[in-house]
Amino acid sequence: MDFLIPYEKVAQRHPTKHAALYEALREAMLDGRLPLGMKLPSTRELAAQYGLSRGTVNQVYETLASEGYVVCKVGSGTTVAYRYAAPEARAASVPDFRLSAWSSRLVDLPREQGHPAAAAGLKPINFASGKADERLFPREAWNRCLYAGIRDETQWESGRASAQGDYRLREAIAMYVRRSRSLHVSAEQIAVVHGSMQALALIAQLMLNPGDRAVAETPAYSGIRRAIRSAGGTVIDAPIDEEGIVPAEWDARALFVTPSRQFPTGAVLSLERRQALLAWAARQRAVIVEDDYDSEFRHRGRSIEPLKALDRDGRVVYVGSFTKSMPPSLRIGYAVLPDSLVEPFVRAQALYEPSPANKLEQGALAEFMTSGGYERHLRRMKRSYGRKFAHLTALLQEELSGSFDWVPSDAGLHVFGWWKGSEEAYLAFRSACREAGVVWADTEPADNGAGIGRWGAYFHFSDLTEEEMREGVRRMNRILNEGAGASRA
Amino acid sequence: MDFLIPYEKVAQRHPTKHAALYEALREAMLDGRLPLGMKLPSTRELAAQYGLSRGTVNQVYETLASEGYVVCKVGSGTTVAYRYAAPEARAASVPDFRLSAWSSRLVDLPREQGHPAAAAGLKPINFASGKADERLFPREAWNRCLYAGIRDETQWESGRASAQGDYRLREAIAMYVRRSRSLHVSAEQIAVVHGSMQALALIAQLMLNPGDRAVAETPAYSGIRRAIRSAGGTVIDAPIDEEGIVPAEWDARALFVTPSRQFPTGAVLSLERRQALLAWAARQRAVIVEDDYDSEFRHRGRSIEPLKALDRDGRVVYVGSFTKSMPPSLRIGYAVLPDSLVEPFVRAQALYEPSPANKLEQGALAEFMTSGGYERHLRRMKRSYGRKFAHLTALLQEELSGSFDWVPSDAGLHVFGWWKGSEEAYLAFRSACREAGVVWADTEPADNGAGIGRWGAYFHFSDLTEEEMREGVRRMNRILNEGAGASRA
Repeated sequence: MDFLIPYEKVAQRHPTKHAALYEALREAMLDGRLPLGMKLPSTRELAAQYGLSRGTVNQVYETLASEGYVVCKVGSGTTVAYRYAAPEARAASVPDFRLSAWSSRLVDLPREQGHPAAAAGLKPINFASGKADERLFPREAWNRCLYAGIRDETQWESGRASAQGDYRLREAIAMYVRRSRSLHVSAEQIAVVHGSMQALALIAQLMLNPGDRAVAETPAYSGIRRAIRSAGGTVIDAPIDEEGIVPAEWDARALFVTPSRQFPTGAVLSLERRQALLAWAARQRAVIVEDDYDSEFRHRGRSIEPLKALDRDGRVVYVGSFTKSMPPSLRIGYAVLPDSLVEPFVRAQALYEPSPANKLEQGALAEFMTSGGYERHLRRMKRSYGRKFAHLTALLQEELSGSFDWVPSDAGLHVFGWWKGSEEAYLAFRSACREAGVVWADTEPADNGAGIGRWGAYFHFSDLTEEEMREGVRRMNRILNEGAGASRA
Repeated sequence: MDFLIPYEKVAQRHPTKHAALYEALREAMLDGRLPLGMKLPSTRELAAQYGLSRGTVNQVYETLASEGYVVCKVGSGTTVAYRYAAPEARAASVPDFRLSAWSSRLVDLPREQGHPAAAAGLKPINFASGKADERLFPREAWNRCLYAGIRDETQWESGRASAQGDYRLREAIAMYVRRSRSLHVSAEQIAVVHGSMQALALIAQLMLNPGDRAVAETPAYSGIRRAIRSAGGTVIDAPIDEEGIVPAEWDARALFVTPSRQFPTGAVLSLERRQALLAWAARQRAVIVEDDYDSEFRHRGRSIEPLKALDRDGRVVYVGSFTKSMPPSLRIGYAVLPDSLVEPFVRAQALYEPSPANKLEQGALAEFMTSGGYERHLRRMKRSYGRKFAHLTALLQEELSGSFDWVPSDAGLHVFGWWKGSEEAYLAFRSACREAGVVWADTEPADNGAGIGRWGAYFHFSDLTEEEMREGVRRMNRILNEGAGASRA
């Protein structure tokens, strides 16, 4: 009899003969080899063909019948009931989904840039990472907070937290921004997010219809442009100078800005400009998103208040994050929202995640903060990072001032400089340094403002030792002396 | 001298005199009480007025000057430099943000229904929760997986996982759906999500432009309509009958369906209809989202394959979840994606969350699954839930068949019935039961299909004891006998 099903092939991946025969018959029907109405062999014939017991074949037929693949009738045997889709229909059905405009925008966005990889060989010196220094982290104290959350016997009952985040954590954050950032806000105005990118993306989606304009600094964190463009918005590139963003009468619904420390140049926005931005937002009924990404690390002078502290009208969303101070796997940030945006924002969070997926981490961070562990850790980091900052600033100014204009700063976790030479020279220098294992982050030349025609480079130091910084600068210097990037002269 | 600043008020919340004076002056400027150009008192005068040292006043003036609030000039004293926004401009600036259409849709959506609360007094019997049974959960084994993740010394280095999810977890899920659901897929096709709602919402956003149509079963999980509407889609209400959704030639871009066990009626979609849906999707270039929310809990008969197992053309997204089997605080689900949707889906995940916020939980679940702990736990739950299922089914049929048409089922974590009486009688009965501490979940009458004009009620049992079920049914029966809902006769 010429009844061909892929039994042997299938048998290799199935533990029992029953399962193998079932799969083989099913596959043959799905592939159209056993067409609708075809009479299947009797249990006796099939059992003989494949060396099976009649009981096994019978069971398989019954299973297939119960699922509708075959019909068993007393007297007339078993016939195929599965209707194979005709090849014409199948050919037309390659997965050419019609995706939404949102989806197309996402796929068209440039991918988030990972850290550039250093060439193998030499010990890599990574000025691009910006991770918190593992050696400074009070791992035991933090782990105790996690263990306490795991052991918490009430967690089963309490079940789901609000999409807005663990309430204790929101209270701890409210206390923290009150003390350290002069923001007098309540836990109700705070939403816990999975890193600042989530806050930026949700705010863009809440404020922008496709075609609406939003202002971004040039240069800026790349995630800001991703957030605006994914919402269908058009980016207005606002130039910056030594005092930060230059206010203008933009026609826009949102402004993304880094007033405490322009990212990445480090410029501090003057009070006059801050007031100008707030007045602009009031006229435009626009929102200002203040991304305060690292200004808790102030090495000299008095801390600068966030723009949000001047915001009497509820125009500013303040975005903060723990990613610079906690382990890289902990993705917790927060948004301080004007009252009128709390409901839409939390609705947006709840759409995707009715209850936070990182309840354990949120609870542990609340415990770490209320027990004082977080601020102790922060003070220790500040001392260490202050020394590293001074060291790297001096090193770069002494060794590489021929090639970069270093921008002075009092705060933050990186040192920024403008490349003095040509684009070609910069690219040659960068690529030679990568070969030598030294990498950093940079910004492409802008069309206007301080970055016009100039490459900017910034060097993180938080997770490097002073010896590693020296070694990195030594290698860069050697490359410059050997002539790569020499056209700077 | 008549120089009024809110010093005493501010002093109560500030630890140092320096901080209190700074805040008081600043607040007076922000409120317009100290207008631009006003000359401030000399340090001597101010010190005398508030009983401060001249040094303190001097320091505060310097701080304010460094921030641009005041100007100090030798010889002419200190004057206000802050320009108070005129009341006209402020009046116009109430936070009347122009929100996006997406935002307005979100705010207009009905809120996710929480579980109805039982009245205080009697011990509540909650048939609405559907949480996994805490008593069955191998807390120690699971906690060991979490502890191992916390102690993992490499986690600092490995840093960020892909937005798509922990790779080991995706491999474990691929293995699991292969073994238990006959889905031959690889880790590359699996995206880990924060519960199935996230998958539904992202797929809707990826497939639907505002105005596009998507099909949902009537009744269905309320999150499906939330997902469609938030993306701007229009819902096509597809009727169901005893064989599940009734296929039609919908003009739509997406179909959300529960083939293994229609939610909440429990109907199993016939093979013929499954084929009809796949053929429809191919013609429409539409996606089918298969929500397989609880069919791993099969109490009788052979497990039914998911629709995805028939999907030769890459038309089906299969959505599964761990929320029915793991603690309620663990929010982990997954989507099995057709190849062509992997990139858009992961891009969408990465937009909001470049790296998962619950790396620890994902790693622990990977360990729990690969060590065999998860399937041991599942087997134990299945035995227990099988007994509870049989118990509740028998109890409801014996005691409440006068009021409900119970829908027979072989699987799942709830028992579904159609109310036989009038709407008024149902609402009176439900409210009397709530008063008596007994709550369950229900579905409103539909415009078409099996639910036309009928209330449906479903009773979860996973976290109830047999004694609690009996007590709940006893109370319901008493209420029926006392006459509430009596108009059913």
